[in-house]
Amino acid sequence: MHIKDLDTPVPVIDLDRVERNIDKLQSYLDKHGIKSRPHIKTHKLPILAYKQLEAGAVGITCQKLSEATVMAAVGIKDILITYNLIGKKKVEPLAQLARQVTLSIAIDNELALKTIAEAAKLAEKTIKLLIEFESGNLRVGVQTPEEALELAQQIKQQPFLSFEGLMTYPCGAEAGRFIAEAKKLFDKAGMPINTVSAGGTPNMYRVHEVAGVTELRAGTYIYNDRNIVGSGAASFDDCALHVHATVISRPTVDRAVIDAGSKTLSSDQINPSYGQGHGYILDYPEAVIRKLNEEHGIIDLAACKDKPKLGEVLRIIPNHVCVVTNLHDEVVVHRNGVIEGTWPVWARGKTR
Amino acid sequence: MHIKDLDTPVPVIDLDRVERNIDKLQSYLDKHGIKSRPHIKTHKLPILAYKQLEAGAVGITCQKLSEATVMAAVGIKDILITYNLIGKKKVEPLAQLARQVTLSIAIDNELALKTIAEAAKLAEKTIKLLIEFESGNLRVGVQTPEEALELAQQIKQQPFLSFEGLMTYPCGAEAGRFIAEAKKLFDKAGMPINTVSAGGTPNMYRVHEVAGVTELRAGTYIYNDRNIVGSGAASFDDCALHVHATVISRPTVDRAVIDAGSKTLSSDQINPSYGQGHGYILDYPEAVIRKLNEEHGIIDLAACKDKPKLGEVLRIIPNHVCVVTNLHDEVVVHRNGVIEGTWPVWARGKTR
Repeated sequence: MHIKDLDTPVPVIDLDRVERNIDKLQSYLDKHGIKSRPHIKTHKLPILAYKQLEAGAVGITCQKLSEATVMAAVGIKDILITYNLIGKKKVEPLAQLARQVTLSIAIDNELALKTIAEAAKLAEKTIKLLIEFESGNLRVGVQTPEEALELAQQIKQQPFLSFEGLMTYPCGAEAGRFIAEAKKLFDKAGMPINTVSAGGTPNMYRVHEVAGVTELRAGTYIYNDRNIVGSGAASFDDCALHVHATVISRPTVDRAVIDAGSKTLSSDQINPSYGQGHGYILDYPEAVIRKLNEEHGIIDLAACKDKPKLGEVLRIIPNHVCVVTNLHDEVVVHRNGVIEGTWPVWARGKTR
Repeated sequence: MHIKDLDTPVPVIDLDRVERNIDKLQSYLDKHGIKSRPHIKTHKLPILAYKQLEAGAVGITCQKLSEATVMAAVGIKDILITYNLIGKKKVEPLAQLARQVTLSIAIDNELALKTIAEAAKLAEKTIKLLIEFESGNLRVGVQTPEEALELAQQIKQQPFLSFEGLMTYPCGAEAGRFIAEAKKLFDKAGMPINTVSAGGTPNMYRVHEVAGVTELRAGTYIYNDRNIVGSGAASFDDCALHVHATVISRPTVDRAVIDAGSKTLSSDQINPSYGQGHGYILDYPEAVIRKLNEEHGIIDLAACKDKPKLGEVLRIIPNHVCVVTNLHDEVVVHRNGVIEGTWPVWARGKTR
């Protein structure tokens, strides 16, 4: 069966592009002696995690405990969770996970440390901890190298915890300055930093410029999307996931409506300097998806010389692909249009 | 078990409020002799569809064929799909659905008519068609009563199709003008309009002011959300769905980060005249959820006198509740905080 014959709306993945994206990043990281630990939040598919491992990744990254649990259940052995896990309810499932895999977790506070220490004790297994630091994202992370050291020293006091290193997102000059300062401070305190883990697809091919980084956790690179193309880290030809959608109404000359809305494409925005609207329509680049309702995408065709017809299927590159796959129970995969399979998105909706 | 003891993030539904919301709207519609045909896109739960039917609804509304298929599979007998169903792939599942239930579908074009006519013929069952018209939403719908009549006359020529009436969203003065004009035109042509179906929660308690409307398809009213409160159609006390999220980082004095991001709350915006940010935090009304990443919500506490502590669980009313339930495989339901069940969101992700 050909992807042209699929019912819509449907997310469609080009496996050749997926493999090319994996190989390209792995080659770059190999060249610079940086480990790859891809973030599976983008695809949420065990089979693609295995493809990344086979290409040379040392392990995977998950954002949530429940995502990691899915990946452990298919046999993946080395997992980093880049998230503060906090609260009594996390202890038992975390202990179970620690029994199954080599586990690292990033934290920025003592309460996360406490939760993880309890789980490690319960499992009688060592969990490696990284300390997340602020590098310009203004999200989570300790603010100074001194705070990082203080937390690292508390880690050392716990029987089943080991201090592994530092972690941040994104990774530019600010991260570099923090790493350099922290290295000095930690050296002086006799605390070796084994791992410095950096994240992000937009800067992926510049991560070797940041001294001290030992591993990269890129996620979006496996599919790429409109925001990544805007950042310059990929081209539209590198975008491996398209959403196919049908024109289901042509109420006026300049308006087309498709069967893909915010429940298919998500409401995630495009960086305004990269473009406008809710996705890039490959077949009509001048068209603008002005508005999404839940199941409708409203397209402005005023700038199009040729305009799509009622019933026509359009191929859309989403603004932000990671939230798109998370909306769908299944994705259809193909090579050159010929369908190879329909894969359940096993870690979809795993937010806890 | 109490909802305070739940792992987070989690959508939590107050059943007393749900029942109150259902009863209040049903009483209003009964008083005005308007039928209720609630839209299940908000809850996507068979059990709540049955609650709406037991309260007096004449049937339900679905937005997509796959949603309707789920509802038919639990025994619901009268379904309106307010969507142009187009394409060969829709014919067989649509015919199956037509064999199971009393089916109505809204269309605005001949291609949808053709697809549905094929399915009806295949099933040898009559499908009732409504014509969707433009009433200010600038989405789908015929633009003039004349177009509506032309389409209605084409419906009459098909053996297993019957013309049922008109349908629109939203429903204000513009809809009223269209209905009045269409009535005259259709009367003259000898085409009775049995049903005029109006949609929308924000205007639900004013639908009696629009002459000719025979049924209302409200959806969001069952839970309500921040946008509905902003519109004046409900209060925060009428909001039946809260998202519980834990503060997992307090990197600076004025910043808290919660474990609910766009994969939990969605990126749907609040109408700027109603408020700012990505949800209303009941416990800290002055706090603003400035930014969502996939699994992080970044909260600005500058305006808060009291500030949430690390590990604290916050209750959030989402901007747009319909896209929130669609992100979650399950919802937890309770009365006065005591958990009554965990319900799989059966029609979640049903976008086709």
